[in-house]
Parts: sequence; C-alpha cells; structure tokens
Amino acid sequence: MSGLVSLVGAGPGDPDLLTRRALARLAEADVVFHDALVPAELVALAPRARRFFVGKRAGRPSIAQETITRLLVRAGRRGLRVVRLKCGDPFVLGRGGEEAIALAEAGVPFEIVPGVSSAIAAPALAGIPVTHRGLASGFAVVSGHAAGPILDSVAPGSLTLVVLMGVAQRAEIAARLVARGWPASTPAALVFGAGRPEQAVWRGTLAGLAAAPADSELPGTLVVGAVAALADVLGQAERTPHVRLG
Amino acid sequence: MSGLVSLVGAGPGDPDLLTRRALARLAEADVVFHDALVPAELVALAPRARRFFVGKRAGRPSIAQETITRLLVRAGRRGLRVVRLKCGDPFVLGRGGEEAIALAEAGVPFEIVPGVSSAIAAPALAGIPVTHRGLASGFAVVSGHAAGPILDSVAPGSLTLVVLMGVAQRAEIAARLVARGWPASTPAALVFGAGRPEQAVWRGTLAGLAAAPADSELPGTLVVGAVAALADVLGQAERTPHVRLG
Repeated sequence: MSGLVSLVGAGPGDPDLLTRRALARLAEADVVFHDALVPAELVALAPRARRFFVGKRAGRPSIAQETITRLLVRAGRRGLRVVRLKCGDPFVLGRGGEEAIALAEAGVPFEIVPGVSSAIAAPALAGIPVTHRGLASGFAVVSGHAAGPILDSVAPGSLTLVVLMGVAQRAEIAARLVARGWPASTPAALVFGAGRPEQAVWRGTLAGLAAAPADSELPGTLVVGAVAALADVLGQAERTPHVRLG
Repeated sequence: MSGLVSLVGAGPGDPDLLTRRALARLAEADVVFHDALVPAELVALAPRARRFFVGKRAGRPSIAQETITRLLVRAGRRGLRVVRLKCGDPFVLGRGGEEAIALAEAGVPFEIVPGVSSAIAAPALAGIPVTHRGLASGFAVVSGHAAGPILDSVAPGSLTLVVLMGVAQRAEIAARLVARGWPASTPAALVFGAGRPEQAVWRGTLAGLAAAPADSELPGTLVVGAVAALADVLGQAERTPHVRLG
C-alpha cells in the first residue's frame, strides 16, 4: 500500500464534529502528528498509530514548522498512512498550505480533509450565526496574533468579524477597531472551548472587551458585530454555561 | 421522547464530509427538510424519515421562508426528531439564524450541528488554502446574490475574498472589485461541485472572470486573492479535473 499524508481538520474539539473521512483516516493511520489544542480523546481515535505531539505552546520551546514539514515528507516517503491532525480546518490559519506545498514539491501523495472550522462553529455553538438577514450578509476571519493592520481590512460594521487566536490581544484589538470607526457599542462575544463540556461564553460590547475574562487553557474565539447579540436569544438553547459580563 | 429540531450542516456535498453528529441525527430522524443543493445520497442517510424538499430553485416557484419555519416549529411541537438539512454550515448565508430564532421563540428544543462550510472546503478541495503565510492572514465570505456594496467591505488585496452564490454575477463582481481597487491581475478561481465526482475548477484572474464558464447545475464558489494561484501547485494532488482557462 502506498503512503498517503492526510491533512485533517479536527473541528472545534468535540469528537462528534469530526467528519466521517477524518474518522476513517484516523482509524487507518500508522502515524499521527497533532497540535497542542487537539483534545486527547480525538487523538485516541487512531489506536493503531504512533502519535506525535508537534504543537506550539505558549512559553515553551516548540518544534519548528520546517521540522514538522520534514517529518511529514519522510513518513509519507516511507509508505505510511499519515494523519496531520489540526484544530478546526487545516487551511484556516494553521499553516496547512505550507505543509501541502512541501508534500506536493516532494512528490508525496497527500490530500486535504476539510474540517468544521472553529471560526464558524465556535460562534454557532454559542448561539451566534456569523451571517444573519438584516444584520450581516458576510463575515471575515482574521488572526489576532498580530492585532495589527489586518484588523483595518474590514470596513467598520460591514461584516461580522471573527478573530482567532486573539484573546490575549483583546484590549489592543478593541482599541484598534474603535479607533478605526467601529462603534464602542458594537456587540462582541468571546467563546471558550466551543463544543466541549467546559464551554464558556462572555457577551458584551467592544467597550467592555478589554476587561473581559480570559482563559489560558481553552482556545478562545472572538466575534464582533451585531450578530453577537443573538447569543442572548439563541445561546440558551445550546445548554451553554453563559457568563454574562461586559 | 421529546422533540428536537436539529439545524444540520450537510457540508459541501460529499457524504464523507458529514460529521458524526449529522450522521447520527439523520439516522434517528422522523422528518427531514432539505434544500435544493443537498445531494440525494445525503438525504437517503435518513431511512426512517419522511423527507421534504423545501429548497429554492432558480426559475421555479419556491416555498417561502416563513412556511419552512412554520413547518419546523410544528414538527418540533409534535415531539418529532426533525432534521433541517442545509448545504455547508447552517449559519453561513443559509437563513439558519431565522429558523433558530423562530424555534427559540416558540419554545421548541433545537440545536445547531455545525457543518463543513463550502466557503472554506470548496477552495481547499481545489488546492486553495483561504489563508497562507505571506499571502493572506485572513479571509472574508460574502453572498454574491446582490454583487453590491458588500463587496466594498474588504480592502483590496488584504484578505482572501470568497463569494458564495455569485457565479451568475461573476462579471459584475469582477468589475466592481477592479473599480474598487483590486488589480485586474489578482488570481481568481471558480470551484464547481466541490468534493463531488464531477468537481471542476476554473483558474484565472479577475480580468478573465467575466468570460469564465458557468455551470447552472453545480453550486459554484468564487475565490479571489493571491492564494487562488496555489491551485496550480496543490490542485493536482486532489485528482481534480482542472479546466484551465482565463
């Protein structure tokens, strides 16, 4: 059997939000390389596989992206069934494109297995539709790591703004958006651990975002825009432990 | 057993891209209400269910959104296990928010089952990562129905722009983006029937988009931005029948 490297989206963390193809690839895998935020119970769905943690964790030395890519290419060349398991979707802010290019250039067979992106699912599981008739007919997803010029890409109030990996920079993000012209009264929400038993939601406005609680253990998704207020109507249905502040 | 209405994302069309929860809800469903673009083989995964087509098709009289909402509320009140099966993700441009609000207001138990959104998966299955280091650190998803001011929401060249339901308006969309400041040489791609055996991809630039072929039967996703050019490197790996024009 020839090797195949599957770049697999793990979804937001709930095993029931894995796709059928992701489950099949995990079941058959010889090797799994997984990120820090992928829950252990998902990795455990690959019982045959040798499993390697290749994630980046704040404050600890982390494995270089080039090393991960080299490991994938090498495992693929050895004819193994390889799963590269990434949070959410492999092509949303996860450097999956770089891994795919390296595999293509090395001539190693690979495939993309799209996943449920936290950018859409985290808001949804808190009762927030990223689009809603009359409120937003589109949405933008950006990385909050830099909290920089990327935030200026979207005209204030036009689209729902979803910021991944931006919890630590929430104060700077709020300040920049308000300076850019977003009203300070714009509804905002932070969703932690979407789809997991410990899911928690903060609901407020841009004005209150800087003082919103953070959670250093759970991944957080920031949603800015009128749709965030719909969590007040729809969030209850999701059995979410709502933390209302702001 | 009490009723439950599940607003379920069907993903881009490939049954292997359904989530485990979506499969479970379909297997248990008493009633399924599905859209026009959900393939028959997905609807067939609900063998016990009465199945109702409630989609909108171009050029034919279609069922009003209010009627769909009323049917969901009524079925939920009767204590049935109801699946509302929507293409992609239920909260991305699918009026799922309106259905959820009606259910919440009627006091009918409901849940959101996020799906693999075509906005991300259609590009991915054509070899296009919506984000890529050095090319785009974010993306925006908008409805192309109107081809109007929503296209002005994103600063030219800043984010990858994904337009759903915009194939028929591709000429107007290209013209508006170029007038707005996007270079006519910006890479663009159209992905038809993503993840299905008949998947086809057009690759070109904004300048060539007006003359790009359309397909009236398959749903099409438009991608605009530097990342679209990566399909030339990554698209082959996906065994995609590439149509290169533009």
